Amino acid sequence: MYQARGEKHWIIPDGYIPPTSKGSLESHESVCVLNCASEDALIRMTIFFEDRNPIENILVVVPGRRTKHIRTSSLSSGGEFIPVGVPYAIEVLSDIPIIVQYSRLDATQAENALMSVIAHPLK
Amino acid sequence: MYQARGEKHWIIPDGYIPPTSKGSLESHESVCVLNCASEDALIRMTIFFEDRNPIENILVVVPGRRTKHIRTSSLSSGGEFIPVGVPYAIEVLSDIPIIVQYSRLDATQAENALMSVIAHPLK
Amino acid sequence: MYQARGEKHWIIPDGYIPPTSKGSLESHESVCVLNCASEDALIRMTIFFEDRNPIENILVVVPGRRTKHIRTSSLSSGGEFIPVGVPYAIEVLSDIPIIVQYSRLDATQAENALMSVIAHPLK
Amino acid sequence: MYQARGEKHWIIPDGYIPPTSKGSLESHESVCVLNCASEDALIRMTIFFEDRNPIENILVVVPGRRTKHIRTSSLSSGGEFIPVGVPYAIEVLSDIPIIVQYSRLDATQAENALMSVIAHPLK
Repeated sequence: MYQARGEKHWIIPDGYIPPTSKGSLESHESVCVLNCASEDALIRMTIFFEDRNPIENILVVVPGRRTKHIRTSSLSSGGEFIPVGVPYAIEVLSDIPIIVQYSRLDATQAENALMSVIAHPLK
Repeated sequence: MYQARGEKHWIIPDGYIPPTSKGSLESHESVCVLNCASEDALIRMTIFFEDRNPIENILVVVPGRRTKHIRTSSLSSGGEFIPVGVPYAIEVLSDIPIIVQYSRLDATQAENALMSVIAHPLK
Repeated sequence: MYQARGEKHWIIPDGYIPPTSKGSLESHESVCVLNCASEDALIRMTIFFEDRNPIENILVVVPGRRTKHIRTSSLSSGGEFIPVGVPYAIEVLSDIPIIVQYSRLDATQAENALMSVIAHPLK
Repeated sequence: MYQARGEKHWIIPDGYIPPTSKGSLESHESVCVLNCASEDALIRMTIFFEDRNPIENILVVVPGRRTKHIRTSSLSSGGEFIPVGVPYAIEVLSDIPIIVQYSRLDATQAENALMSVIAHPLK
């Protein structure tokens, strides 16, 4: 049995899905989760906006001893998706400790731009 | 009622507003704040330079349960703005805990470059 | 004698070896380790995937008072390498404290994209 | 009188000065320091390599209530500079607490790539 490692609560203040893509790659963001434990992690995300109420209760399962690189464009709750071209923020809550990194590939121009941060852990 | 989360004091040592832009996007920086609390956060920023006194008392409000992606070029205090093309640093003080990330899009060349960090929290 | 500094356990959730390269540089990732101590550090890495069991027991030595920028494409265990074009995550365990940073150069397009994070330390 | 804030000891494992530049900007790295205190900070850097002894005792002063974005190509000790095109790591020691961020602009290709991290603080 492997132990869960990391934190249960993570924050990414700078979310943004670039609305357009050129070149061979598509603009996207990934919330990259590592679950070191033998058991599955149940993740609950909240999406915050500048001018409207949050989207709550987005659920994702990350199996034990696996990573999952979650495309933000795939996330939905009650049929609602994150709109493109809009500043937002991400809260990640897990039932067991995990580690979270956020990366964005911006292919607005044909030549790509990349950024990445380890999400901010709350203790 | 949602509780405030994060820290009240954050530092970004590497600020820089690229003076020029090419291509379809404009060079800019954003100080991205998430306020998890129900109540508003009152933020006070100080801008430090290499060769002159700081600009103090830049005030921004981030409403409760909202994010705000603040363009540094929009910040001013007493009619004074941050000059472009000059190295500077940012101190963010909030009356309640928040989480702060800093991102820069450099479009000096037509194909963009991106960088991002979670600001350094002071406890 | 110099003292070991940092942590013994580090996590990088977002690993990815870009499968193609254009231009004068080759796409690659580096796990950059600093060993401040006089003695050598013995590092043991585990590679996690989305849909298969981890690759375990990848061993690397970082000599005392040296840095090592380890190309992930060079890592192997039992003749097995990390496949390109596949999302994965990295766990770094060391017998003495070290400091770990992860950087990726994506040269999928001829003009490069860069990202970097300090790995997440586990205590 | 303003109080010193941050930490006295910071590490950047991934240093690299790109050997070439194209386009309108020059490849460079910056060690960006913020000194929140009223008094000056005296900084002592050590540069670690993969296959040779460190360069020690590189001294820099950051005045009180100022930031300094230090180009690594400007650093020297006893007439010795950091060579370009070589992987290295940076240790930053200060006599009073400061905050340190590291950024790299890679202009190997005409279109730029950027990366940035908050240095890893040692406590």
